[in-house]
Amino acid sequence: MATPLYQTVIDTIVARIASGELPSGALLPSETQLGAELGVSQGTARKALSELEKRGLVQRAQGRGTFVTLRTPEMSLFNFFRLRSPDGTLTAPELVSETVIRRQATAEERAALFGRPEEVIEIRRVRSVGGRRTTHERSCLPPALYPGIVDRAPLPNALYVLYQRAYSIIIVRADEKLRAVGAPADVAAALELGEGAPVLLMRRAAVDVLDRVVELRVCHLVSEGLDYFVTLS
Amino acid sequence: MATPLYQTVIDTIVARIASGELPSGALLPSETQLGAELGVSQGTARKALSELEKRGLVQRAQGRGTFVTLRTPEMSLFNFFRLRSPDGTLTAPELVSETVIRRQATAEERAALFGRPEEVIEIRRVRSVGGRRTTHERSCLPPALYPGIVDRAPLPNALYVLYQRAYSIIIVRADEKLRAVGAPADVAAALELGEGAPVLLMRRAAVDVLDRVVELRVCHLVSEGLDYFVTLS
Repeated sequence: MATPLYQTVIDTIVARIASGELPSGALLPSETQLGAELGVSQGTARKALSELEKRGLVQRAQGRGTFVTLRTPEMSLFNFFRLRSPDGTLTAPELVSETVIRRQATAEERAALFGRPEEVIEIRRVRSVGGRRTTHERSCLPPALYPGIVDRAPLPNALYVLYQRAYSIIIVRADEKLRAVGAPADVAAALELGEGAPVLLMRRAAVDVLDRVVELRVCHLVSEGLDYFVTLS
Repeated sequence: MATPLYQTVIDTIVARIASGELPSGALLPSETQLGAELGVSQGTARKALSELEKRGLVQRAQGRGTFVTLRTPEMSLFNFFRLRSPDGTLTAPELVSETVIRRQATAEERAALFGRPEEVIEIRRVRSVGGRRTTHERSCLPPALYPGIVDRAPLPNALYVLYQRAYSIIIVRADEKLRAVGAPADVAAALELGEGAPVLLMRRAAVDVLDRVVELRVCHLVSEGLDYFVTLS
């Protein structure tokens, strides 16, 4: 089956966003300009922009044009860090400790990550909110996409912002699985909890603008006095 | 500040959907018809329809017009029941037991629910998936919106579908807070778990098409072998 024309327009714009040619906040060509440049009708260009808007990659401003969605560290924190006080207040987490290593990938990591890597970079962090240890986090990356990241440690708090600025990897979606578990011994020690205390286990696959799984993350989150906020619709 | 014209169009259509005048699946008037009927420009009608599409209330079908989003029991289950096998398979839950009572509202329920009710209807259910008890659920409703619901017991499995069909209450969003907790004694007994076993505590405020909080739900979910799936973006 032939690729529909508007899909070609979508792919072209996504590639330009991913390469940094169209950075965050940039103004896109008008529907007419896009149509002329890519040899499609204005209607096809409009359909492609609509679809990109639905995916959250671009935003239209009445009378001003269409812009690449501006992604800031604050937005990344707000969208992807869901642990809040019960009243919904978000406090930015602080780093307690960090280890970055390169190791063999597990079979599961190899199967899930983009490029089926033999090895992964593992970033292991303990983070705190308001002086209290709340998060034990292991993020696994395919090394080919993040050259030299091991040498960048200590890494900034907002990893997704680093991925975008240093590697042009733009996370647009995270698929998560949550469960309640008793804290394993190493997690309990790191979070200063009793072994077996109930903690939220979150396993996340982060997907970038090119629809690649570019990070797997396993977090244990303290639950006492904190909630994990989500909205379903 | 005056209400923008397109907001008036939105409110009119939402009211028609909520009253059942425009039922699920119904074809909406065209932009031109809407504009003529409500005395606004076609552009204003288009903007209102775009906004309603963004909120998921209507869907456009190329060349066929705009329709009220079809909501089926399957969609309600798929969107709002997030407990799945680790591979993502969704099995519809079955009812193990149900109690429906009317009681005094707590201060918290009164503050959160639409109409600030003095009393609430509480629906207490235990549900199972594949023969295993997985869910202990307490749903609280403001009685004024659900006349006679106590006499309808036993209630159907998909409560949101009942709300829509019997009371024209259309749930469009659920704000949830999740934590890991040790199972309290009553929950542990109902779910056949050891007291203190880690379970997922989910507290949900369900919001309808008129932006009213029409149900508060507190669920305890078994975590062993099951995941709670969410997508962030």
